Amino acid sequence: MKVAYLGPEKTFTEKVARELFAHEELIPILPIRRVVRAVDTEAADFGVVPLENLYGGAVTETLDSLTDCERVKVVKETSLGVVHCLGALKGHGPILKVLSKDQALDQCGRYLCEKYPEVMVIATSSTAEAAQRIAESRMLDSAAIGPEKALNEAGLEILAKDICPNNRTRFAILGRNPTESSGNDKTLLVLHPPVRDRPGVLYRSLGFFAGLDLNLETIHSRPDGDKGYLFYIEVGGHAADERVRSAIDAIRLSLDPKKEHPNVVKVLGSYVNTHWKGK
Amino acid sequence: MKVAYLGPEKTFTEKVARELFAHEELIPILPIRRVVRAVDTEAADFGVVPLENLYGGAVTETLDSLTDCERVKVVKETSLGVVHCLGALKGHGPILKVLSKDQALDQCGRYLCEKYPEVMVIATSSTAEAAQRIAESRMLDSAAIGPEKALNEAGLEILAKDICPNNRTRFAILGRNPTESSGNDKTLLVLHPPVRDRPGVLYRSLGFFAGLDLNLETIHSRPDGDKGYLFYIEVGGHAADERVRSAIDAIRLSLDPKKEHPNVVKVLGSYVNTHWKGK
Repeated sequence: MKVAYLGPEKTFTEKVARELFAHEELIPILPIRRVVRAVDTEAADFGVVPLENLYGGAVTETLDSLTDCERVKVVKETSLGVVHCLGALKGHGPILKVLSKDQALDQCGRYLCEKYPEVMVIATSSTAEAAQRIAESRMLDSAAIGPEKALNEAGLEILAKDICPNNRTRFAILGRNPTESSGNDKTLLVLHPPVRDRPGVLYRSLGFFAGLDLNLETIHSRPDGDKGYLFYIEVGGHAADERVRSAIDAIRLSLDPKKEHPNVVKVLGSYVNTHWKGK
Repeated sequence: MKVAYLGPEKTFTEKVARELFAHEELIPILPIRRVVRAVDTEAADFGVVPLENLYGGAVTETLDSLTDCERVKVVKETSLGVVHCLGALKGHGPILKVLSKDQALDQCGRYLCEKYPEVMVIATSSTAEAAQRIAESRMLDSAAIGPEKALNEAGLEILAKDICPNNRTRFAILGRNPTESSGNDKTLLVLHPPVRDRPGVLYRSLGFFAGLDLNLETIHSRPDGDKGYLFYIEVGGHAADERVRSAIDAIRLSLDPKKEHPNVVKVLGSYVNTHWKGK
């Protein structure tokens, strides 16, 4: 069995793929769209891509790629704590520079503002590169942000642990066979209203979920590049559940009463709700 | 006058800062939160940060930093077309590798899937670094994605232009003095409902906008790290306009009838609507 994941190797995505598919062939692929496409075209049986980070928000490239494909669906969600540490060379002087990947720098922005308000911050291509660059160039005035293991492997000592508390990344496991209802599911949908800029379009759609007591878990608007919007929504329940089906039918009818637009509502997957945000 | 912008230099953000504040002192700062904080604490008079990319979605670090600050507001939006090109060394062979910054690789995912389905894709810390690395190491089997100017400056020839069509980034100009209503504004708000996981909370809030015919321009849910949600919303109209004020008052009352939570609705700025998505 082939499992494609967002590369490169030695990332959190690989860790997730390795835990879930320990004995399968793992294939690192960049960028995200190619992983999604690999599952869609049967070049891979499963895929693993990031879906949301608690600090960084939704991974729109994952959502948009799913919308553009036909067969690939989200079949499972899983999440991983992301613990960032700060490390420097033994014998370092005052820290004047901090290096890391830009997403990690953003996630640790609050910590940097408080503890190192004056340092120069430098973006690298990966957290591993930040640590290696400090080690190789003997930068005694610099610190790197990254996972403890990567800092240790580069020979840095840890100055501070977990500087971006409660950080988690949620991953989508992609497949082609739909899941069955478990009684504790959620469904990822994309709405694409054909009407534009008419107040209340989204409001009326959400009314069908609210009216059937279906909980909204996430919502993100996206420009469709043609003056309209896509709305990505996660709603409690499985797409095969009666209430979810009924709400989707009603939304479809309300957005496209003449049935001219095949993709006004598209289900991108139903999967067990892990309540990843820590309920 | 001091203008802080998200660094490093030679990025799209600097270009925007330079166009809007041609004769002022420009200060590159990383990460985003420190730019927002600089304006909030009067270390800078204005700030320039990315707010949304048509492919990448909302820049959550900008939104979350604004929520955490007191005085800094968005006072203006502006946008810039982002034209990615593909370049390689003169005399290059078949392209086996493509290098660029991960955001650029994601944005060009559709192009890569179609034109180079088999290449190895490598993430660099910036688009400029991708071009430089190819030039310095004479990588004749590789191409870089970046702005035409950066590819040319590294001595690469252009293989394809504008490989990620209609790509735009919207920037927020930050200041401390509120704007006046122009008749063509929008308002960025954050809602933070104290109730959790009760179906219909967002739906009822949006009802006040819909009921007053106020158009929703963007909406993004964000976990608040404590089992609740923040909702970032842009709505047509200025916060000083009667309909917007009235809707905000009603939402506040509906989310917090006993007035126990000061920040259930917070205005993060009102500014002229540029209809950046090309209406």
